[in-house]
Amino acid sequence: MTAPGFSLKVEAVDGQARVGQLTTAHGVVDTPAFMPVGTAATVKAMTVDSVASTGAQMILGNTYHLMLRPGAQRIESLGGLRNFMRWDGPILTDSGGYQVMSLSKLRKITEEGVTFQSHLDGSKHMLTPERAIDIQNKLGSTVTMILDECTPFPATEKEAADSMHLSMRWAERCKGAFKERTGHALFGIVQGGIYADLRAESARSLIDIGFDGYALGGLAVGEGQGLMFEIAGVTTPHLPADKPRYLMGVGKPLDIIGAVQRGIDMFDCVLPTRSGRTGQAFTRYGTVNLRNARHADDHRPLDESVPCGASRAYSRAYLNHLIKSNEILGMMLLTWHNVAFYQQLMVGLRDAIRAGSLDNFAAAFQADWSRGDIEPL
Amino acid sequence: MTAPGFSLKVEAVDGQARVGQLTTAHGVVDTPAFMPVGTAATVKAMTVDSVASTGAQMILGNTYHLMLRPGAQRIESLGGLRNFMRWDGPILTDSGGYQVMSLSKLRKITEEGVTFQSHLDGSKHMLTPERAIDIQNKLGSTVTMILDECTPFPATEKEAADSMHLSMRWAERCKGAFKERTGHALFGIVQGGIYADLRAESARSLIDIGFDGYALGGLAVGEGQGLMFEIAGVTTPHLPADKPRYLMGVGKPLDIIGAVQRGIDMFDCVLPTRSGRTGQAFTRYGTVNLRNARHADDHRPLDESVPCGASRAYSRAYLNHLIKSNEILGMMLLTWHNVAFYQQLMVGLRDAIRAGSLDNFAAAFQADWSRGDIEPL
Repeated sequence: MTAPGFSLKVEAVDGQARVGQLTTAHGVVDTPAFMPVGTAATVKAMTVDSVASTGAQMILGNTYHLMLRPGAQRIESLGGLRNFMRWDGPILTDSGGYQVMSLSKLRKITEEGVTFQSHLDGSKHMLTPERAIDIQNKLGSTVTMILDECTPFPATEKEAADSMHLSMRWAERCKGAFKERTGHALFGIVQGGIYADLRAESARSLIDIGFDGYALGGLAVGEGQGLMFEIAGVTTPHLPADKPRYLMGVGKPLDIIGAVQRGIDMFDCVLPTRSGRTGQAFTRYGTVNLRNARHADDHRPLDESVPCGASRAYSRAYLNHLIKSNEILGMMLLTWHNVAFYQQLMVGLRDAIRAGSLDNFAAAFQADWSRGDIEPL
Repeated sequence: MTAPGFSLKVEAVDGQARVGQLTTAHGVVDTPAFMPVGTAATVKAMTVDSVASTGAQMILGNTYHLMLRPGAQRIESLGGLRNFMRWDGPILTDSGGYQVMSLSKLRKITEEGVTFQSHLDGSKHMLTPERAIDIQNKLGSTVTMILDECTPFPATEKEAADSMHLSMRWAERCKGAFKERTGHALFGIVQGGIYADLRAESARSLIDIGFDGYALGGLAVGEGQGLMFEIAGVTTPHLPADKPRYLMGVGKPLDIIGAVQRGIDMFDCVLPTRSGRTGQAFTRYGTVNLRNARHADDHRPLDESVPCGASRAYSRAYLNHLIKSNEILGMMLLTWHNVAFYQQLMVGLRDAIRAGSLDNFAAAFQADWSRGDIEPL
């Protein structure tokens, strides 16, 4: 049984890839979709209007950050995360498990859950499946993610199996704690490391429990693009065709393109925002470091092909100046451009799937990308 | 002889105060006007569209910063400062003299000019009256400021006189170096410290040379508001009624109100932008530190009376969260609010002068301001 008012309508397919519309309590999302990351109730260095202007329809929030500051109870009393940060569309929140493992200290995992120390003030916390869901209930998340253990890479088949089985027991507890509301969804997360059989088993376990969407977890953790594509490709056929599939934490443009070709509908990644803050711009011809002196006299816009003020209205020379001067506006403009670039990529992917030309699109993109850089002046 | 295409039309007066329109090559500016500071070719943490949305019609750029990075020659070859930073309206640039004295190292002033070491890389530079004007010619500034010596406070009458006389000799050299273009202006700067006779003498000297506008320099340097008002009040009567008067580097809201009452038309100050980056918000009831924990659960907007998204759309709790989390968006929103607040103050001043009720406006503002803070929840 899944949530009413939350559904994926697949409109066209091209190979394993699908294009569709995800209907939620807080608006419709065209898929394949890329969700900019709004870690601590803000997509860093952007206003929500600016995020929406790029075409982004859904964003991601991090439970780990929000539970520590400003706190789930506080956000609930302020009307939920969407109201708190003034984002009109749907929000997906992760469970906090990934950040506990990557950011916090003194972690300990038991059957009950995971205990950890806050990276902010050293305070002790426990995240259980029930608590992870309760926090997301309080945040009012459009899509809630189950708490899982992100199996490290590398892991033996035994380690990956034990970890996956723990995640599946947690998945069931998460389902029990989830507060159903129309148009809100709970997603399961397939684990199993790089082992196709374990992935298949995990998918079956989750389908038995019943979720509104299915994520692939434990990828993009060092296994490399080839293995990631392989696991995605063998896992998606085990997932229901009428439910959204979400590849967590991915990725670079070519990662996204390859994953879409393998049937993934949803993505999130800090790359466009984080890179923007360090002067790195994504273009069809690879990434460009705007800090580099060769841009200092370049009057051309960053990338006229991207429909965004930051990409078209300012010279590379100006962006170079801002980045070299550590001006906040430099971070604002490059973040804006990068998020717009990612959204444009998703538009291209959706158009290509509709036209049945996804492989051509992917090959053309890859050829341009491998040129490695925009043309020098 | 003054520049064609650059003129102040005084539309109404109230006591010494005037309301008017300043016509320039790059647009009309309603006066009294507050110019947000765009130090290094950016109003920090704001896009130019956002600056314009606050009602700001003219901004300020800093010659010192721009000559060091990215360089005047480079900005000229990129179409001038307005084109470089995509600001559509007029720009006033200072001469660099003030920042040389406040930021650079190993300064030495001679009749010829001032030598200094860059605060960025220690490189040696010389700023002469001719070079200060040449740089601003290259920047394409709508209003160019002469190079002067900002007389320190305190200074004896002899020291203030010697310093002022040097500035007057430099003023003449600046006039000779200025490249006249339609709608572009060169402003003189009245010096003379806290000595009314010296201020009057300085004003006469500048008028003899002939400028398109007259600034008051060497104020807001520690003499206090009372003395600043006194000097402004005795100086403006010596200045031509049909030329704009600019009080450099001022100031807090009450400084601006008092100076407008004494006949000042133009202002600039880093306060609204700098305060915004540290979590300080200006309101009619004084400044508010959004970092303070008492805002953490406050669902009310920052200041509904200010026509700006940052002031109205977000809760104080959200702003508190952003500032505490050192999120760039916190700086963006508070800077935006503060700049909008200052522009709203200028609208209020202009309306009050037109209505002949400036003194009432000033008294009411002062009464609210002295309450010291917005109401706690």
